[in-house]
Amino acid sequence: MGDHLRLLDQRFLPQKEDWLLLRTHEEVAASIRDMAVRGAPAIGIAASYGLALAAQNGADRESADAILRASRPTAVNLFWALDRLAGITWTPADILEEALKIEAEDLAMNRRIGENGAALIPANAKILTICNTGALATAGHGTALGIIRSVHERGDGLHVYSCETRPRQQGLRLTAYELLKEGIPFNSIADSAAAALMRQEKIDAVIVGADRIAANGDTANKIGTYMLALVAKAHGVPFYVAAPSSTLDPAMACGDAIPIEERDPRELTEIEGVAVAPAGTPVWNPAFDVTPGSLISAIITEDGVFRPPFAF
Amino acid sequence: MGDHLRLLDQRFLPQKEDWLLLRTHEEVAASIRDMAVRGAPAIGIAASYGLALAAQNGADRESADAILRASRPTAVNLFWALDRLAGITWTPADILEEALKIEAEDLAMNRRIGENGAALIPANAKILTICNTGALATAGHGTALGIIRSVHERGDGLHVYSCETRPRQQGLRLTAYELLKEGIPFNSIADSAAAALMRQEKIDAVIVGADRIAANGDTANKIGTYMLALVAKAHGVPFYVAAPSSTLDPAMACGDAIPIEERDPRELTEIEGVAVAPAGTPVWNPAFDVTPGSLISAIITEDGVFRPPFAF
Repeated sequence: MGDHLRLLDQRFLPQKEDWLLLRTHEEVAASIRDMAVRGAPAIGIAASYGLALAAQNGADRESADAILRASRPTAVNLFWALDRLAGITWTPADILEEALKIEAEDLAMNRRIGENGAALIPANAKILTICNTGALATAGHGTALGIIRSVHERGDGLHVYSCETRPRQQGLRLTAYELLKEGIPFNSIADSAAAALMRQEKIDAVIVGADRIAANGDTANKIGTYMLALVAKAHGVPFYVAAPSSTLDPAMACGDAIPIEERDPRELTEIEGVAVAPAGTPVWNPAFDVTPGSLISAIITEDGVFRPPFAF
Repeated sequence: MGDHLRLLDQRFLPQKEDWLLLRTHEEVAASIRDMAVRGAPAIGIAASYGLALAAQNGADRESADAILRASRPTAVNLFWALDRLAGITWTPADILEEALKIEAEDLAMNRRIGENGAALIPANAKILTICNTGALATAGHGTALGIIRSVHERGDGLHVYSCETRPRQQGLRLTAYELLKEGIPFNSIADSAAAALMRQEKIDAVIVGADRIAANGDTANKIGTYMLALVAKAHGVPFYVAAPSSTLDPAMACGDAIPIEERDPRELTEIEGVAVAPAGTPVWNPAFDVTPGSLISAIITEDGVFRPPFAF
């Protein structure tokens, strides 16, 4: 970051590698809201640089902080990063230094999450995942996909099943893009095929990321995660949540109070700008759901592997 | 049907009402294979008219029968209709008369399925369904959507949640089209949102169609049906299968032997001809799954409401 933040626009992947040059905190907030940047840790990091740009541009601190906080409601990493920066002296150099630290620490945490999680995964594992939790969603390596990367580095065989992740198709677009780049064997599947897959194949683990984890382990994550947790339980498949500790929200006793963002119906009814549903189709389009901690076999952070009952 | 079968091409709905004029049994077989016509009962009816065209055109009976049987493997109504026609004298008039009877009987059966099913549904019900099981998928009225129509005719309130039904989006395209035409209140949802919906709202029933029902009640239906059955069970929501008795396959003891069609990966990776996944993305794309009879609260046919344990 010099006078701008350079950000790969995830909306055009995998067809186009389009880099955004963001020069103000307002532009960064818009890139989060419009999902050019996605993934709870990546959102927190982008917001940190947004605040660094605000400091550099001589913007009002309070207003910049408020604008960034209003970009998306569910991922707690956004608020965690801004809370952390609130404790730093308001000079461009100090805020930027802390933002760089947040990014560097996220990468280091992901590496440790990868190691902690990989220890739970047998050789020749079949792993199911949803959404994108890889290098694009974090500072690098990834959370759930970081564990998959760490297992792949071990070299003892691995097959990934990657859910499409409607409506925005982060699995089909972004996770497939990362898995192909890494040479990790996989199949993309429709989200609705996850249950049929578990009936047909012995899946060793479902691993997902998180946008916010309450004190009791209740986990907000991409819509479809709760469905996978129920289906995993019915088939006796371990269900793991992987996230840096910045995703924990101990102030929230349980998941009922986690704000769940509802997004534009056109995310479902249009694809690539083309309407597929009849005009006037009403839609319910929550971006996230909450999986009760009781359905989670373990929560994996950089600090270790936590088993239920959870008490963060 | 004069010298041709006139068929609404479901692939272009809801954007375009494009009618196919099919003049040979080969063209009818292709329209089934390529999914211009969809829905187990509609496939059986289309195949019947295909055989009538073959008789009219002086085609070889055995070869016409074989070509139609090879069009799609899972829906048993196809084989049921062709088996029934095998008992009819090979004259154009006789085959056509029986095909007309098959269509008329399907409509009458759907009306009775609608009445039998509606009796199970309380006032002001919230009903979840998947795929298209309406007038487009049958001779008219529909099976699962027929029950919804019958409940709607009762006038005591109703709200439908309609799953998108990836990969071909029959729910988002076709069911939404029928529900809008009927003025039945509904929301389309991503398939993956069904579990979150059941956690948030009291859903009174999940109602689905069927492509083949084994003697023990195991039911092959659109991919995602098994997922819904597991999620319904976890939430104590009744799970109903609605189908004409032509969908029963008592010769099949259980669902394990039902052939499940795997379709072209591009159904998932391309939408409206536009690639959304990166080139080279491997896909597992089963068109159907099997729901064990033990997860089904009742199977509703024109003959009544059957409860487990099933023995057809």
